[in-house]
Amino acid sequence: MASSSSSSSPIYVMVNGVSGKMGHATATSVVKRPGYELVPYALTKRAKEPTDVEGVAVEGIVVGESGEDAGAVLERAKKEYPGLVVVDYTLPESVNENAALYVAHGVPFVMGTTGGDREKMLADVEKSGNYAVIAPQMGKQVVAFQAMMQRMSEMFPGAFNDYTLSVVESHQKTKVDTSGTAKAIVESFRALGVQPFDDDDIELVRNPNDSVDRMGVPETYLDGHAYHTYRLTSPDGTVAFEFQHNVNGRAIYAQGTVDAVLFLHRQLYGKPGGATQKLYDMIDVLEAGVMR
Amino acid sequence: MASSSSSSSPIYVMVNGVSGKMGHATATSVVKRPGYELVPYALTKRAKEPTDVEGVAVEGIVVGESGEDAGAVLERAKKEYPGLVVVDYTLPESVNENAALYVAHGVPFVMGTTGGDREKMLADVEKSGNYAVIAPQMGKQVVAFQAMMQRMSEMFPGAFNDYTLSVVESHQKTKVDTSGTAKAIVESFRALGVQPFDDDDIELVRNPNDSVDRMGVPETYLDGHAYHTYRLTSPDGTVAFEFQHNVNGRAIYAQGTVDAVLFLHRQLYGKPGGATQKLYDMIDVLEAGVMR
Repeated sequence: MASSSSSSSPIYVMVNGVSGKMGHATATSVVKRPGYELVPYALTKRAKEPTDVEGVAVEGIVVGESGEDAGAVLERAKKEYPGLVVVDYTLPESVNENAALYVAHGVPFVMGTTGGDREKMLADVEKSGNYAVIAPQMGKQVVAFQAMMQRMSEMFPGAFNDYTLSVVESHQKTKVDTSGTAKAIVESFRALGVQPFDDDDIELVRNPNDSVDRMGVPETYLDGHAYHTYRLTSPDGTVAFEFQHNVNGRAIYAQGTVDAVLFLHRQLYGKPGGATQKLYDMIDVLEAGVMR
Repeated sequence: MASSSSSSSPIYVMVNGVSGKMGHATATSVVKRPGYELVPYALTKRAKEPTDVEGVAVEGIVVGESGEDAGAVLERAKKEYPGLVVVDYTLPESVNENAALYVAHGVPFVMGTTGGDREKMLADVEKSGNYAVIAPQMGKQVVAFQAMMQRMSEMFPGAFNDYTLSVVESHQKTKVDTSGTAKAIVESFRALGVQPFDDDDIELVRNPNDSVDRMGVPETYLDGHAYHTYRLTSPDGTVAFEFQHNVNGRAIYAQGTVDAVLFLHRQLYGKPGGATQKLYDMIDVLEAGVMR
């Protein structure tokens, strides 16, 4: 238990959804990175065994209809862990409810959970004046690449006029839909002038054998990977550009999330009274530069 | 012979250095693209047979000590081909002299020749108020990629902190030095935070067998290609980004040069009195968007 949020005390992080894959990966990054401390409890809807995170046992405090008052738990955490930042990797159906809870108790948070009513959440949080980073993709480097392709399409419209595009993405077989990142990048390529290309033209690889043989995914990561290849070919076939971003596991997202925590903490405590802007995304985190 | 530079008349292009590889490729693009007309003579220092460009015979008028006055030839060309734009693909040792010549006679020009005293040329042309596009790399799409990497490093410094970089580039075996484009892009990756990487760490492939086997260069293009692969790997090895730009032959540079001609022509005649800015590079051409 700590008594201040000065620079010498660690940054306290509560990870709601710690028993899930992304929550656990993020909590692991928190424990491993110097200067951070994982709060040994988190909110949950159903009773579970404590979650072990690199030797730290995180208790799930049942809240809601069947348990304690979630707000009371947050208030207690704020007192016990000054400067607390909450990370949310829960479920799409909890996104709006949880954001409203954090806002109601003035807890800065990083929302890594996807889904829910995004527009409503962004509007609600913006209106509240609560500090938050909200982003559907926490992989900083992937976000940087995506932002650059968008910027290129704005700065140099038609630079790849009449080029042919092909896109293939491989993910774990449980991922049903097409990658949102791939769709966003295809949108930029369209603005760069490539020949007609629909989102449906993105080739999905979901068969483990193909993921290994064609895309080179290590077998260890068949159940969690994101491999993307974009290829642009000039009309006469003499020029080809290829861009790949290949992610194994969840470390990149976990690290990006902890970077977002640090960023948010600095916005709050880095200057007297805190930063004027309060709602951020990963582009803001990237623009702030090296986070450690 | 033409009488006006109105939109109905073609854009006249004189290609100095037409007997060289890049000059010939550019002249070929001029002849093939509707709306352009190749001037059937060009400046040369030594007597040569006329150069055939897709059926157009381009006479080399010998200028300098052993021939006609270069300025007089340019003045004649200006009269015969109103709205004339000159393209220069000559030799490094002629760069400054030629730029001074075009400036002295008020001929707008696209300088594709590399080398020479670049700073002096840029300063001289800027001071003169002559219209010109001067760029060491005319491949628009390659320039766009290079500009984006630089922009990413400025916007998101440290985004690839501690990533490992590897770079390999393959060119025709006659190219001795390391690709300037590769060095410029490596500079951006340094600003993005990669682990120490010197220009000397760029791997050069100049052996034809390696170009074919390792890089996949078609045998037809062994004597003229530019294949670049950049690979970024995260410290823990779970994330990899790969960027490739692979160019066969000279078509991309020739097309970029003709785009620069059109761009320059529009700056001159697209608005009354001409554009205020007069000295441009390929970024300006790219920002102008689709050129045909």
